Amino acid sequence: MAMIGGGRGSFIGAVHRMAAALDGQIELVAGAFSADPATSTLTGQDLFLDPERVYGDYTSLLEAEAQQPPEKRIDIVSIVTPNHLHTAPALMAFEKGFDVVLEKPMTFSLQEAKLLDQKRKQTGRALLLCHTYTGYPMIKEARARIASGVLGPIRKIYGEYPQGWLYNFLEGSNHKQADWRTDPARSGAAGAMGDIGTHIFNLIEYVSGLQVTQLCADINTVVRNRKLDDDGAALLRFNNGASGVLMATQVAAGEENKICLRLYGEKGGLEWHHQDPNTLLLKWPDRPAEIIRTGSDAVCTATRHATRVPAGHPEGYLEAFANLYRNFSLALRSKALGQEPDAIVLDYPGTTEGVRGMAFIETMIASSRTTQKWIDLIA
Amino acid sequence: MAMIGGGRGSFIGAVHRMAAALDGQIELVAGAFSADPATSTLTGQDLFLDPERVYGDYTSLLEAEAQQPPEKRIDIVSIVTPNHLHTAPALMAFEKGFDVVLEKPMTFSLQEAKLLDQKRKQTGRALLLCHTYTGYPMIKEARARIASGVLGPIRKIYGEYPQGWLYNFLEGSNHKQADWRTDPARSGAAGAMGDIGTHIFNLIEYVSGLQVTQLCADINTVVRNRKLDDDGAALLRFNNGASGVLMATQVAAGEENKICLRLYGEKGGLEWHHQDPNTLLLKWPDRPAEIIRTGSDAVCTATRHATRVPAGHPEGYLEAFANLYRNFSLALRSKALGQEPDAIVLDYPGTTEGVRGMAFIETMIASSRTTQKWIDLIA
Amino acid sequence: MAMIGGGRGSFIGAVHRMAAALDGQIELVAGAFSADPATSTLTGQDLFLDPERVYGDYTSLLEAEAQQPPEKRIDIVSIVTPNHLHTAPALMAFEKGFDVVLEKPMTFSLQEAKLLDQKRKQTGRALLLCHTYTGYPMIKEARARIASGVLGPIRKIYGEYPQGWLYNFLEGSNHKQADWRTDPARSGAAGAMGDIGTHIFNLIEYVSGLQVTQLCADINTVVRNRKLDDDGAALLRFNNGASGVLMATQVAAGEENKICLRLYGEKGGLEWHHQDPNTLLLKWPDRPAEIIRTGSDAVCTATRHATRVPAGHPEGYLEAFANLYRNFSLALRSKALGQEPDAIVLDYPGTTEGVRGMAFIETMIASSRTTQKWIDLIA
Amino acid sequence: MAMIGGGRGSFIGAVHRMAAALDGQIELVAGAFSADPATSTLTGQDLFLDPERVYGDYTSLLEAEAQQPPEKRIDIVSIVTPNHLHTAPALMAFEKGFDVVLEKPMTFSLQEAKLLDQKRKQTGRALLLCHTYTGYPMIKEARARIASGVLGPIRKIYGEYPQGWLYNFLEGSNHKQADWRTDPARSGAAGAMGDIGTHIFNLIEYVSGLQVTQLCADINTVVRNRKLDDDGAALLRFNNGASGVLMATQVAAGEENKICLRLYGEKGGLEWHHQDPNTLLLKWPDRPAEIIRTGSDAVCTATRHATRVPAGHPEGYLEAFANLYRNFSLALRSKALGQEPDAIVLDYPGTTEGVRGMAFIETMIASSRTTQKWIDLIA
Repeated sequence: MAMIGGGRGSFIGAVHRMAAALDGQIELVAGAFSADPATSTLTGQDLFLDPERVYGDYTSLLEAEAQQPPEKRIDIVSIVTPNHLHTAPALMAFEKGFDVVLEKPMTFSLQEAKLLDQKRKQTGRALLLCHTYTGYPMIKEARARIASGVLGPIRKIYGEYPQGWLYNFLEGSNHKQADWRTDPARSGAAGAMGDIGTHIFNLIEYVSGLQVTQLCADINTVVRNRKLDDDGAALLRFNNGASGVLMATQVAAGEENKICLRLYGEKGGLEWHHQDPNTLLLKWPDRPAEIIRTGSDAVCTATRHATRVPAGHPEGYLEAFANLYRNFSLALRSKALGQEPDAIVLDYPGTTEGVRGMAFIETMIASSRTTQKWIDLIA
Repeated sequence: MAMIGGGRGSFIGAVHRMAAALDGQIELVAGAFSADPATSTLTGQDLFLDPERVYGDYTSLLEAEAQQPPEKRIDIVSIVTPNHLHTAPALMAFEKGFDVVLEKPMTFSLQEAKLLDQKRKQTGRALLLCHTYTGYPMIKEARARIASGVLGPIRKIYGEYPQGWLYNFLEGSNHKQADWRTDPARSGAAGAMGDIGTHIFNLIEYVSGLQVTQLCADINTVVRNRKLDDDGAALLRFNNGASGVLMATQVAAGEENKICLRLYGEKGGLEWHHQDPNTLLLKWPDRPAEIIRTGSDAVCTATRHATRVPAGHPEGYLEAFANLYRNFSLALRSKALGQEPDAIVLDYPGTTEGVRGMAFIETMIASSRTTQKWIDLIA
Repeated sequence: MAMIGGGRGSFIGAVHRMAAALDGQIELVAGAFSADPATSTLTGQDLFLDPERVYGDYTSLLEAEAQQPPEKRIDIVSIVTPNHLHTAPALMAFEKGFDVVLEKPMTFSLQEAKLLDQKRKQTGRALLLCHTYTGYPMIKEARARIASGVLGPIRKIYGEYPQGWLYNFLEGSNHKQADWRTDPARSGAAGAMGDIGTHIFNLIEYVSGLQVTQLCADINTVVRNRKLDDDGAALLRFNNGASGVLMATQVAAGEENKICLRLYGEKGGLEWHHQDPNTLLLKWPDRPAEIIRTGSDAVCTATRHATRVPAGHPEGYLEAFANLYRNFSLALRSKALGQEPDAIVLDYPGTTEGVRGMAFIETMIASSRTTQKWIDLIA
Repeated sequence: MAMIGGGRGSFIGAVHRMAAALDGQIELVAGAFSADPATSTLTGQDLFLDPERVYGDYTSLLEAEAQQPPEKRIDIVSIVTPNHLHTAPALMAFEKGFDVVLEKPMTFSLQEAKLLDQKRKQTGRALLLCHTYTGYPMIKEARARIASGVLGPIRKIYGEYPQGWLYNFLEGSNHKQADWRTDPARSGAAGAMGDIGTHIFNLIEYVSGLQVTQLCADINTVVRNRKLDDDGAALLRFNNGASGVLMATQVAAGEENKICLRLYGEKGGLEWHHQDPNTLLLKWPDRPAEIIRTGSDAVCTATRHATRVPAGHPEGYLEAFANLYRNFSLALRSKALGQEPDAIVLDYPGTTEGVRGMAFIETMIASSRTTQKWIDLIA
């Protein structure tokens, strides 16, 4: 694997490397870690990489690595740059024959997203979009339970993603994360809706197996002088007639990263909290609620596959992230061996989810600018 | 005190009697407990009442009790009938010189609410509207903390009231509660929005000290053949510029009565859950969250006044309800003694809140029927 | 009902009055509220009592009230004085033909407890011992589940009662509660072991249906200059071969009243927390844990009988306390009517539990003074 | 790094490999994974190891690897075999100049533990003993808070480790874990007390900074026909005069791995639960409890060092385990570079803790066999 972005001081670059390393299936051997060649070099040293394979920019990396002999050549390029630098390296990686790991939101715009999806199909490559939360075992269990029908048809969905880290004007104070995420030139049309709104939107669709068809959004820029939205909520309508509410905010002062998902069907409901990720609550109108736990015997095969330690040994964010990398690498390995990958390993987010995420962003922004109540979400 | 409604088998009548009895300040001495005189009589016997003061209808009660000599005469009439039977007995009670306790929503329509408010003012009487949740100590603490400014100006409010008891077609199966609450002739223009929506709306305004100025609602009748809404959500705008989300549903299969309130200001946030009512979480962006507890030294005078036992001895719904009755009776006693009641005892919901609640209902229903995004809430 | 003790400023007297009043079945009509006649008189006024029936001492009360005509005469005497003033008024009340409510620990010594038990039997009277925690619905449910055998034979029991209110030298600073509870002349042989140790001991035996046969205790006086124990723990052995651990402390700085009970049988376990009293967790080795809730359909008849409001409406300490009073009064009423009381209403703690509690105290103290590991608990 | 034990199907071997891999600082290059050479070979293949460096037994491994040229030679030998196979390979590893990672309990007996400690000192090598729970960020924070004195001198300690996986006779049914852990020939003098009792004992001493001086234990073999203890509890006395209670059981049917630690000092208390490992509760008698969270600004440097992702991104068991490996490897690297390791990286359990753990086991067993109440714990 090679990495683009993720130089010293990057949060998400380090996360990707840990996630990729955890299972001993993926080896990082090359990188263009920073637009600053010196930083890239130092990062390569930190990671014990061959200096020959540490590059000052992504084009050099992709070109040089494409020339490596097969036994040394990378398979995967992991792109962990800000949003405006997703599409170009991803397109080039596809063209060079590499599979791609990409941070969300997938691209800078819906148009770019469609282009990338198209290119991926044309080149026959694979893309892993890092909707990390879908990697949690209990999210997989929630999805499986709903798919099985035990809750009955879903009627009501509540998805929340409150954070507090942008509760004040953090940008402009040498906070790299805050800087680019609140900058329209690097982040895109949306701030919070892109950064975390897409996550909760993706979780809602992933777990429910439904699609949002219409929404009505209220988007706000709460902190003065901020250039992008930092808060929003939407009423949702789904393709099966269900309704829902989506909340995403980065100004909930004092909150960390408190995703919560609740779905109710005709026969029961379920609830998941990111702060207690190894627990899934099943609620029933006619019998006691049940506590489903990671690692227990109560879970399905896909959940078990997403678990590394016995029940009672907490698994967290890095393990969820590693589940994305593991499924992606297992699917690619099957493909490389000419085998049909197991359905379980094909369970990772890709360009389809990326296109829907970008459509979500653009629809949310459009909704916030109109006096029309409901507008269609078309991906 | 006399009671109108609340005959054998009534849930809320018994609750009112326990709440009124708890502090030994109010004595129930008369009642017209049911439209069925036999039921009324039996209920009076259950309650050890003088049979002379048990009536077959509310007009007889109000007329006869108004004739009692001062030392025997009741002060308060507690009306616990369905919504369509609120206004007429309350108006008559005012005219006869009694103060009134009334279940929410206050009336059948906004028009009736304004009439009742007017009559109350004309007659110089008092009305307690049973927004029970405002009686919880930690709700009072939340209100006090926000009023004190420690959270800074409020920016974001989330209020939820999910229930599951109407997840299927319960009406028509001899379930009295379900029957009248889903019947437009007895419940009014709204089902869930009136029954529980008004509660969470009231809590939001009470705790925040703000007023909703505009809303955008999605109201649903999820269960087939039901005549009134059983689910809804709304985007909210407040008079200080804050935004919010309100959720109220009775079809969240498996949920009990899971009110949750979260408010975030410029400096911090707070969170309260009805399932753990004696805990208030204060959240700070720059220091650890704090757990404020009923009965502890950390609370303000109004909270202490709403507490009967030391910290660690759970107080619940009946105590919250009793807090309404206690404040109401203490305020009336001061008035009777010609004293100015303490601000703490005047802290109970009345016709002002009742009018706003009815305006909320009618605005929610109106919003759900229009393609216009935001509509004004005018009380 | 008449009350002995519980004058102005008393915590537990007010609690008893609220608990007795809640259900409208018991009327307080007389009292000797304080050793100070003026305080007694004022307390009577606070409670709207006939001044004729407010007494300066308990002997006057019992003698005068025994002379009342049947229709005015009290049935029950509620004694809420410190431990050294339990036995004498209770004995006299029995002799005068009254039934007795008594705070725990039942008496000053095991010897007194046996005497009181004997006298009760001789006089044919009833006694309610206020082990309040047995009044919680979910405690009744826990007992019922274990009795039903669904957990299999019980093997391991953990009972805890941590408090923090005596973490420093509170006595001697005009804190009435702290003063008498740490005074051997008023409290008896034990401090914390009597005040809260007996509660958790009683809960363990009540819920498990087992009896402690042997124990090995470590008792401490942690706060300097304190005259009685403020902390302790014991290893327990039960009559069915099970083992257990009991913890009770009043120096757990920062804890409120955090009782916790866990029992494990051959087939499963259960867990109850006083801080979340309406939840009972059932745990299974081979299927998901279940959350049993007060007011839900999952509970047994005895639990339902101990519940006043629907699921999701928290019930607390006062309701648990009222459940003791209600069962006691219902049992007495049946007896008065010459009927056999229902088994459900006979479910209240009495002299048998009182004798065992006093034996527990004396055995704990004895154990702490010996180098012998296990000593027998003989009641 | 080379590994001894941990062949296909081993739980703890895989855990060690993930923990070592997470930070990209340690590379597994050799192994003797099983007493069965074929299994060892297959495991080596799974791990993409050079077949030359996969051995059929540990003596071959240690001898051959000691001959490798410096640039290829391993530094660390990780031994993950059952208890009876700890001492011999560890001693030989020391003699061959390797540093050692060892599972707990450190050895088969206290005598072996002292021997190993001695040999380590003689050879100047380092040993990491895998008391994983000390790797959790909030455990480090708890330790730091207590060391800082904010809680005042510690008075009371409760440490619990309930599990349920051995609630029935699992051994003898091809369950490798259950088989060896309940076999005196492989596990040693104790079952549960060695497997999990040592963990909670170590946590208690690590967090408190105190030492247990005396204990009084009740040890049980609950499941019929089991050869070793599966349950126990002990009263504890500490070197500063504090007292405590330790509970460890493997027959708490329905429990997973529910470690809980509570310590109370003169000024406050703290509480940590393994099921919610990123939260540390600080409790105060005179102000609200505080919720300290992994990744937040409230934590000390050592805690921050033990954290990989921002607050709100759950970290779990593997990260805690990786913290042990990381500190160990960083300390060794400093040493290799001739530098003084930072105190923070020297914070990992070693032979001192191993000796105390073995003394704990032998003292618990001795206590359970005597009628003497307190016996000394001498390491």
